[in-house]
Amino acid sequence: MARNITPKEKNYSDWYLDVIRAAELADYAPVRGCMVIRPNGYGIWENIQAVFDRGFKETGHVNAYFPLLIPNSFMEREAQHVEGFAPECAVVTHAGGEELEEPYVIRPTSETIIGHMYSQWVQSWRDLPILINQWCNVIRWEKRPRLFLRTSEFLWQEGHTAHATRDEAFDETFKILGVYRDTMRKELALPVLYGEKSENERFPGADNTYSCEAMMSDKRALQAGTSHFLGQNFARAFDISFQDKNGERAYAWTTSWGVSARLIGAIIMTHSDNDGLVLPPRVAPVKAVIIPISSDEDILRGKLEPAAEKLSRETDAALGGMYSKVDRQYHTRPADRFFRHLQRGVPVRVEIGAKEFADGEVTIVRRDTSGRERVSMGECAARVKVLLADIQQNLYDRAKAFRDANTHDVDNMDDLKKFFSPEGKGGFARVYFAGTPEDEGEIKYVTGGATIRCMPLDDESRGKCVYTGKPEGRRAILAKAY
Amino acid sequence: MARNITPKEKNYSDWYLDVIRAAELADYAPVRGCMVIRPNGYGIWENIQAVFDRGFKETGHVNAYFPLLIPNSFMEREAQHVEGFAPECAVVTHAGGEELEEPYVIRPTSETIIGHMYSQWVQSWRDLPILINQWCNVIRWEKRPRLFLRTSEFLWQEGHTAHATRDEAFDETFKILGVYRDTMRKELALPVLYGEKSENERFPGADNTYSCEAMMSDKRALQAGTSHFLGQNFARAFDISFQDKNGERAYAWTTSWGVSARLIGAIIMTHSDNDGLVLPPRVAPVKAVIIPISSDEDILRGKLEPAAEKLSRETDAALGGMYSKVDRQYHTRPADRFFRHLQRGVPVRVEIGAKEFADGEVTIVRRDTSGRERVSMGECAARVKVLLADIQQNLYDRAKAFRDANTHDVDNMDDLKKFFSPEGKGGFARVYFAGTPEDEGEIKYVTGGATIRCMPLDDESRGKCVYTGKPEGRRAILAKAY
Repeated sequence: MARNITPKEKNYSDWYLDVIRAAELADYAPVRGCMVIRPNGYGIWENIQAVFDRGFKETGHVNAYFPLLIPNSFMEREAQHVEGFAPECAVVTHAGGEELEEPYVIRPTSETIIGHMYSQWVQSWRDLPILINQWCNVIRWEKRPRLFLRTSEFLWQEGHTAHATRDEAFDETFKILGVYRDTMRKELALPVLYGEKSENERFPGADNTYSCEAMMSDKRALQAGTSHFLGQNFARAFDISFQDKNGERAYAWTTSWGVSARLIGAIIMTHSDNDGLVLPPRVAPVKAVIIPISSDEDILRGKLEPAAEKLSRETDAALGGMYSKVDRQYHTRPADRFFRHLQRGVPVRVEIGAKEFADGEVTIVRRDTSGRERVSMGECAARVKVLLADIQQNLYDRAKAFRDANTHDVDNMDDLKKFFSPEGKGGFARVYFAGTPEDEGEIKYVTGGATIRCMPLDDESRGKCVYTGKPEGRRAILAKAY
Repeated sequence: MARNITPKEKNYSDWYLDVIRAAELADYAPVRGCMVIRPNGYGIWENIQAVFDRGFKETGHVNAYFPLLIPNSFMEREAQHVEGFAPECAVVTHAGGEELEEPYVIRPTSETIIGHMYSQWVQSWRDLPILINQWCNVIRWEKRPRLFLRTSEFLWQEGHTAHATRDEAFDETFKILGVYRDTMRKELALPVLYGEKSENERFPGADNTYSCEAMMSDKRALQAGTSHFLGQNFARAFDISFQDKNGERAYAWTTSWGVSARLIGAIIMTHSDNDGLVLPPRVAPVKAVIIPISSDEDILRGKLEPAAEKLSRETDAALGGMYSKVDRQYHTRPADRFFRHLQRGVPVRVEIGAKEFADGEVTIVRRDTSGRERVSMGECAARVKVLLADIQQNLYDRAKAFRDANTHDVDNMDDLKKFFSPEGKGGFARVYFAGTPEDEGEIKYVTGGATIRCMPLDDESRGKCVYTGKPEGRRAILAKAY
C-alpha cells in the first residue's frame, strides 16, 4: 500500500486528494476556489475533449466561441436563470483603467449571450437549426471547492442549439444525452445511468433537464453531464424568432448541454485504488511506459535504452499515436520508478532488464490487476494493444458490477431512512416516486441528503410511490451525490 | 466582382470587414471590444491550434491550465510587466455576492501566476526544464478594436518554460521561433520573416523578444507570433529557484511565447481577394464542396445527390478526415450557391450537373485561380487532393512574391520618408540601424508610424545606419504595422 495515500476506507476525501497529488493531476491555485490543472491532468482532459468533440461533430455540430463577459442586463432577462446564477457570479466593474458604465459578469454559462447572437442570426426557418458547441472556461463562485468536482473556475463544453419545432428540440436533447452516455461508457469506462431530472434539480430556465449519473467508489452519485430542453424560455427572453414555412412569426425552441472537467473527478473516483490513479486506457495521456533497468551503465545505455526506444516506436505505431514513453530516471531505484508510473495511472508498464534482454523478452505489468507476463520483444507492441483494450473493458465491467451490487430496491420510507443511515447499505436506492418537489425535499431531509439523481429513461415500469404510497410512481434513483 | 464586398483598392479596412462578414467568420459582440467567432472562423482556429499543438508536442512540450484570475499583487511584482499591462486589465472586484478583499485581474498573459506555481514545483535541477503550454482566453482592454487583430478578449496559446541555464533558455526561445516560422510558412502559407525585436517593441519584462512578421496585402506588417527570452526577471520576482548540480541555490531562466487568433486576420489579409475569403487548404475547415445541380428533381435526388455523397466519402478517405461537404441548397440558384462557397474560402468546388453525370464526369473549380477542369468521377478525389496541395503552394508563392516585390533597400532618411509617404512605394524598408530607442522613435514620428518590425536572424550583414550614419548597423526591417 502506498505510504503517500490515505486508504479510501479510512477517509475517502483525503484519499481523493492524495491520489490527485501523487499523480500530479492538479493543485489548488492562489486564487480562491480555483485550481491549476497540471500536465498529467490536462492530458486526460485533452483526450476527453477529443472523444466528445468527435461525437458532437459526427452528429452535425460545429464549434464556435462567444465572449467571456456578459452584460449584467442580459442575465436578468430570464427570471429563473438570474435567480439561479446571480449569487455565483464574478463581476468585472473596472477595465482599461476606468469604471465601467454597466458591469459585466464572467459567464457562469452562456445561454444569455448566445441567445442574443442567435436572435441576430435567425430570420427564416431556413436559418435553423443552429447546432453550435463551445469549449471554454466558466466561473461560478464556490465557497467549498474540491479539485475537479467543484471549483470557482472550470473548463467545460456548452452546446447551444435552436430549432424550428418543439419535436426537433426534444430530439436534439435526447440525441446529445445519447452521445454523452455512449461516450462515457465506451471511452471513460463509466457505466452511467441516464434519465430525467426531477423539478428540484432542473437547470435554471429549463423546461426539462436530463442527465447521466455515475456511481463513485464510495457509493455516492456524481452527475456526469446534463442535457436541457429549454422550451421557448430563452427564445422569448432574447427574441430568437423567425418566419416559419407558412410565413408566420414564431419563436425558436432551444436546448443546451454540457460536460466539464469534473469528469476527471468521476474517473478518479470510479477507477482508482489505494495505490493511486487508475485510468481507462482510452483517456490515459501515456498508455504504456517502457522502463530499461540495469546497474551496468554499458548495458543500460548501449543495449536496453535503444531496445526500449524501438519498443516505444513500435507501440506508438500499433496504437496510432504518441502514446508510449521511455523512462530514463536512472538515478532512481527501479521500485520507485515503477511506483511513480503506477501512481500516475499509466495502464501498462514494460520492464526490460539485462536478463530479459538476453532472452529477447520483456515483462509487461498491467495497472488494473497487477498481472504480469513475459512476452518476446517482437510481440510486445501487439500485446500491449490487446492488454489496453482488455483493461478498458475490465475497468468498465468492474465499475458496473460495483454499481449493480450497490443498487437496491427500496419501497418504503423506513427502509429508505435505514438505507441512507450511517449503518445502512448506502448506494443507489431504486424507488418509485409520484410526489411533489416538496416531498422530494422531505426525503432529502430525512435521509440526510439523498436526492432523485434521475428517473431512468430505459425503465418505464410504474409502482407504489416510496413517499406518498400513490400508485403509478415513476422509477427513480435516489442517492447522496457530489 | 462581389457586390457585398468593398474593393480593397477603395478602402482596405472596409474590404477586410466585408470579407469577414461575407464568410461568416465573426461578429462584433454586445460587449465592448469583444467578438464572437462564428463556426466558419472557429474551424480555421481549430486547424491552426492543431498544427501548432503538434509542433509543440513534437518538441517535448505538454499542455496545462492555469487560472483565469490573477491576484492584483502578483502583477505588481515585476515592475516593467505591471507598467505594460495594468492599463489594459479588466478587474474583478465582486464575486459570490460579496466585495473581494483583494481584486483579481483577468489574465492579460500568465507569466505571473505561472511563475508562482513554478516556484512551488521546482526544488532541484532535476525538476527542470518545465516545458508547458496553455491554450486559453486573455483580456487586454482595447479602445479601438478590429476583428481578429485587436479585441479586448482574444484566444491564444502561451508557452511558459523554465530552465537551469541561460543557454538552455535561449535555445528554447529560438526553438519555438523556428516552430512558429515553419508552421506559419508550411501550414498557413504565410511567408514570414523572423528576427529580433528592437528594445522599443519588447515584451514588458523580457530581456529579448523575437518575432515572426508577415506582410499583408496592403503592404503593412503584421506581427504573427512572439518568443520571449525572459532572463531571470520573473524567476527573481516569483522566486523560481532550485538547487543546482553543485548544491548551490540558483534562479531559473524562463521563456514565454505566444500566437493568437489574430493569425486568422493575417490569413485573411494575406490571401483573400475582392470576391471574398481565400484560405490555405491546410487550415480550411471545408476543403472541398460538392454541388449537385439540376432543375429536374428526379435526376437531382435520384442520381446527382447519391453521386455527390459518394464523391464526398471518397474525398474524405483520400484526405484522411471529414473535410468535404455536399451542398444541398437546392432552393438557391446555382450561381449563388457557387458564390457562397467561394466567399467562404472553400479551396475547391466540384460541380455535378445532369450532363456531366451522363458523361461520368465532374467539373472542378479552384478558388485561388478560378481554374476549371473536367475529370472523371473515379479520378475526382485524387485530383482534389493534388489540387489542394497545389493551391497551398500557390498561395505561399504568391504571397512571397508580393512581399519580395514590396521590400526595398533604403539607405538614407530622405528616401525613407519618401518611401513611407502617401505617394511612396510603401511596404518593407530594408535598412541598417545602429541607433537608440529614441532614434527609432524619431523614425516612427517622421515616417508617420514605421517601426522596426524585426532584425532578421538570417541576415548577419552590417552597414551604414539609415538614421545615425554610423557603420556596423544591424539589418532591420522597417514597416507600418497592424
